[in-house]
Amino acid sequence: MKRTVSFQGELGAFSQVAAHALAGDKATPVPMPTFQDVFESVVSGKCDAAVIPIENTLHGSIHDNYDHLLRFDLAIRGETFVRIVHNLIACPGVKQSAIRKIYSHPVALNQCRHFLEANPQCERIPFYDTAGSVKMIMEKDLRDAAAIASSTAAEIYGARILRKSIEDDRANYTRFFLLERPGKKKTKADENVRYKTSVVFTVKNIPGALFRCLSAFALRDLNMTKIESRPLRGKPWEYLFYLDFHGHVDDPVSKNALNHLAEVADMLRVLGCYPAAR
Amino acid sequence: MKRTVSFQGELGAFSQVAAHALAGDKATPVPMPTFQDVFESVVSGKCDAAVIPIENTLHGSIHDNYDHLLRFDLAIRGETFVRIVHNLIACPGVKQSAIRKIYSHPVALNQCRHFLEANPQCERIPFYDTAGSVKMIMEKDLRDAAAIASSTAAEIYGARILRKSIEDDRANYTRFFLLERPGKKKTKADENVRYKTSVVFTVKNIPGALFRCLSAFALRDLNMTKIESRPLRGKPWEYLFYLDFHGHVDDPVSKNALNHLAEVADMLRVLGCYPAAR
Repeated sequence: MKRTVSFQGELGAFSQVAAHALAGDKATPVPMPTFQDVFESVVSGKCDAAVIPIENTLHGSIHDNYDHLLRFDLAIRGETFVRIVHNLIACPGVKQSAIRKIYSHPVALNQCRHFLEANPQCERIPFYDTAGSVKMIMEKDLRDAAAIASSTAAEIYGARILRKSIEDDRANYTRFFLLERPGKKKTKADENVRYKTSVVFTVKNIPGALFRCLSAFALRDLNMTKIESRPLRGKPWEYLFYLDFHGHVDDPVSKNALNHLAEVADMLRVLGCYPAAR
Repeated sequence: MKRTVSFQGELGAFSQVAAHALAGDKATPVPMPTFQDVFESVVSGKCDAAVIPIENTLHGSIHDNYDHLLRFDLAIRGETFVRIVHNLIACPGVKQSAIRKIYSHPVALNQCRHFLEANPQCERIPFYDTAGSVKMIMEKDLRDAAAIASSTAAEIYGARILRKSIEDDRANYTRFFLLERPGKKKTKADENVRYKTSVVFTVKNIPGALFRCLSAFALRDLNMTKIESRPLRGKPWEYLFYLDFHGHVDDPVSKNALNHLAEVADMLRVLGCYPAAR
């Protein structure tokens, strides 16, 4: 039986590109309306895995998903980086000179500001989803409109790419996580693979508390690649910290670091251990 | 002449409540459509000061404003915490039983989910602004609609509060900053006042870099109250860090800590020094 992988958005979304990169081309992508639905689909067993965006190099972290990682008991099993390439897409036969309306998700419209400013004859119309805007112009066969979305979206809905890569900044990457139910399998350390481990913790409310927590990694020369703070519900002005570091949970050094962190932190949970992307 | 203070939103927004708390009741509030307009109004000299939200205890940081703090050369001169109380507001004479539509900003609708679920006869309609939704129902004299907004908004537009405090979670506070042009004045340290200093820095791309930066504060027993990471433009997977600590820039200990931080960080900028709220 084919593996099912849920993601947020319509078929052709950048999350679907990530889903195939992480779960293979044969996996069946299952689109869902919200990130919460995506998490629930794996918890309930409806889908085998989920793919979620966690941060973008221009916009920063996707905080809803950090919050969901804490709320739902799923394990991070993989990560990948997808370069976000935005294309101007229209129905077959429609020429760029005929375009007067451009539909896309507000973030995508914002990331193509230079192109849009150079084309003031086109009205920018915010839409709920990038791939969904391609689906819509194709379903309605709009002859004066275009969408901004991935090349995968153009392919899936049979639309044509009028202009490739119209985004302002090419250093536009999104990091995605592959999630599965915990305990299902444990990544065994392979000497030729570089791993990352992700944790979430809270600190004691005393000066230097975060510094002590980071010492667990710094004093062992473990490379921390990301730290993200989120408000702690019910405790105004206290925070949760999400931290990623290079290392496998079964490495003796990582084990010692996690034991040390558990000692100085207030709460600690390992969210997953997975091969590092790139 | 009265002091003008710009803020994002319509008259009656929570930012206006914060503006009076920070600049006094006599200050003239100047509403602006976007956060960028707010920053530009002070840089250009059009307004004397600005008030911006920087973080909320339920939703976390307002990242656009962190990015603007770096982009625009303004100084943080004050902070305040405003408890976010959402009220059900309608035109005078309209009874709660007549309400079929409820307008507000999506975040406010989301923060009153329990109330809205208990009233399924009311359609939730996302609007661009909380106070703006009160303004709109009053202008159109809607008799089957209500808005969710601050009590200040009800007062300003002459509307009536049907139900007070309908938010799900009372631990809902927003922290606001008062901004002015730099160099205008320097807060002199008052022994009876507790100060905070806000900085932004980047770290060298080596293991333990952030730990070394935090050591500047931890080794001097300076209390760090907040750390926030943001992506560094043009350098994928590298970050800017925004940090707040208790201390006045003129205290010898804080001075030493900032000198130490400048030594181990790649870039460092002091964003401001101001009396700590509460």
